[in-house]
Amino acid sequence: MVIGILGGGQLARMLALAGLPLGLRFRCLDPAPDAVAGHAAELVVGAYDDPQALRLLARGVRLVTFEFENVPVAATDWLADHVTIAPSPRALATGQDRLLEKRMFQSLGVAVPAFATADDRAGLHAAVRTTGLPCVVKTRRLGYDGRGQVRLPAGADAAAIDAAWTALDHPGSGGLIVEQFVTFDRELSVIAARGRDGTVVVYPLVENEHRAGILHRSRAPAPDVPPAVVRAATEFVHAALQHLDYTGVLTIELFLRGQTLLANEIAPRVHNSGHWTIEGSVCSQFENHLRAVLGYPLGDTAMTGGGVATMVNLVGELPARPDLLGVRGLHVHAYGKAPRPGRKLGHATVVGADRAAVDALADRIGALPASRPGDWGFDG
Amino acid sequence: MVIGILGGGQLARMLALAGLPLGLRFRCLDPAPDAVAGHAAELVVGAYDDPQALRLLARGVRLVTFEFENVPVAATDWLADHVTIAPSPRALATGQDRLLEKRMFQSLGVAVPAFATADDRAGLHAAVRTTGLPCVVKTRRLGYDGRGQVRLPAGADAAAIDAAWTALDHPGSGGLIVEQFVTFDRELSVIAARGRDGTVVVYPLVENEHRAGILHRSRAPAPDVPPAVVRAATEFVHAALQHLDYTGVLTIELFLRGQTLLANEIAPRVHNSGHWTIEGSVCSQFENHLRAVLGYPLGDTAMTGGGVATMVNLVGELPARPDLLGVRGLHVHAYGKAPRPGRKLGHATVVGADRAAVDALADRIGALPASRPGDWGFDG
Repeated sequence: MVIGILGGGQLARMLALAGLPLGLRFRCLDPAPDAVAGHAAELVVGAYDDPQALRLLARGVRLVTFEFENVPVAATDWLADHVTIAPSPRALATGQDRLLEKRMFQSLGVAVPAFATADDRAGLHAAVRTTGLPCVVKTRRLGYDGRGQVRLPAGADAAAIDAAWTALDHPGSGGLIVEQFVTFDRELSVIAARGRDGTVVVYPLVENEHRAGILHRSRAPAPDVPPAVVRAATEFVHAALQHLDYTGVLTIELFLRGQTLLANEIAPRVHNSGHWTIEGSVCSQFENHLRAVLGYPLGDTAMTGGGVATMVNLVGELPARPDLLGVRGLHVHAYGKAPRPGRKLGHATVVGADRAAVDALADRIGALPASRPGDWGFDG
Repeated sequence: MVIGILGGGQLARMLALAGLPLGLRFRCLDPAPDAVAGHAAELVVGAYDDPQALRLLARGVRLVTFEFENVPVAATDWLADHVTIAPSPRALATGQDRLLEKRMFQSLGVAVPAFATADDRAGLHAAVRTTGLPCVVKTRRLGYDGRGQVRLPAGADAAAIDAAWTALDHPGSGGLIVEQFVTFDRELSVIAARGRDGTVVVYPLVENEHRAGILHRSRAPAPDVPPAVVRAATEFVHAALQHLDYTGVLTIELFLRGQTLLANEIAPRVHNSGHWTIEGSVCSQFENHLRAVLGYPLGDTAMTGGGVATMVNLVGELPARPDLLGVRGLHVHAYGKAPRPGRKLGHATVVGADRAAVDALADRIGALPASRPGDWGFDG
């Protein structure tokens, strides 16, 4: 049984690595001939909106799923006419569009930062007046990892607003959205899977820390979060899954300010903040996504072992392989990607019983010397 | 960095699945075009002793390792001349030959059942007189999973001995060996990895139960084994690794009679009785084999979680996939092989803290209805 995946990056690769032991096989579509999912799956090289490539992807597969939400509408439309796809186009559409997301959050009674949309330069000035300064100007669509956004500080003038318009206005961005810049204490994410029959399983709440707009560290369960906040996040993801009549893994990013949760955005897919589940949960987010979209019983999201996990991203460059493998107890995941500044090349996970000990072990990665070109054998 | 593997079955497949997250890639050689390691590795289809196929396997790889010990000498010789191989040809030669094995066991001071070799029909009669009846007649080479052996019961007559000769004498078997039939209480195995620098890590002792000559269940740590026996098994595997100047994972199968260990055989490779290490140990036997042969630091063999694991083989047919995935807490490994009586199609592992609860969960597999043809999508 072959599963199609739109996208051939590390998320597709980890889906394949989780699915092969279930007797599944995979075919990915990616424009890059060196897309790393190709190490564990058949790779179709082509544009996401190329009907010929989509036809090759869809031929004989049981269904098609996605490793990212910014799928061109043309691709979703073509696929929906030819093959089962999951999650649904509606969920993808919501995940692609910051305005639809925010409206969903509001309809579910979850607070969001003040916002306003802008479809032209004048509208952007008006929107900034609505939210006030400081604020963040974002494209409604196609943003990720801090791309597609400009921060306007307190005191930003009209020229700065014009510059933001110029930087962000481009075809396919769907217009802009201005969000009040909110201060918050912590960033959290909640990851859940919903099966075809409506069954829902939720992973322990995760705390995320970013560096330069890219996820640096995720810790589960998020330390010292009041039980009422955990309950609220869990209820929220249940409500979102039901609202979207969702099938598969869904991630919601949240801000915590005092005891109040603010919704940031959803990702209708497996998520970087859930990579710890590979070793840290009985059934990983990757396996549960496959179980969900295929209509099989969902797996146990309970944490393994001592119940504490920390994941650290390896961004831009990798430590030398022997050094990394020499940190006893570290689970190493190198994606096979060539180094490049800001690029997610891998991650490492520590599982244990003691929060301080687990974090200390994960912190040792930061002190390792970088590898030299050629060390990993995929610098090409 | 590409690793070559001689053999493309489930062991090679699990080596690849363990190595891909380390940033490694794999190329396997197997005569079968549907060899299942091909789902996660490049597959070269050819005979093991075909120089052209071996050349394709070896081209540009960092080293070649093995998923089975019955490698034709022609293949080992060719490879040793062209590429780094691990474990060493000497270790493979010992693992291939029951006589060399037994001599090594004796030199290390470990008891073995009484035995005698036979190179012709008359020699077999003499050998049976030496060991007495009942006994087991085996080929010195190329036996596995109960194949290549005939049991002679108490009272077996000359005609039965002749029949054993006729059944087992064939080119490449290396002559026969007769072993006294020993009664024993339990079958155990000890799995260890030795790095290039001589560092050794040992997994907890495993108890194995067979059905129809094929491993049915492995439990770790072997329940209720006296500490002195665990110590003896650990010392034994250390001694064997050093004796062979071994690099990689080595398995020793043992019989336990009262408090006495008897050596049965070695497998110079990852082993079915170590599949539980994928979820049950911090670092699996597959990852540790790769770390060892590549000269990287070895991983932690400590058990995860509650420290109890049970693995059950799925032989001949698989339960239906939804039923199998419906057993909450089961880690399912389907190898993608078409069903056939007596064929190992997969395994499932349960990890926990309570021996009785873990075993009870694993036992539920036996009660599941079989899948129908086509259910798994690889019945072809």
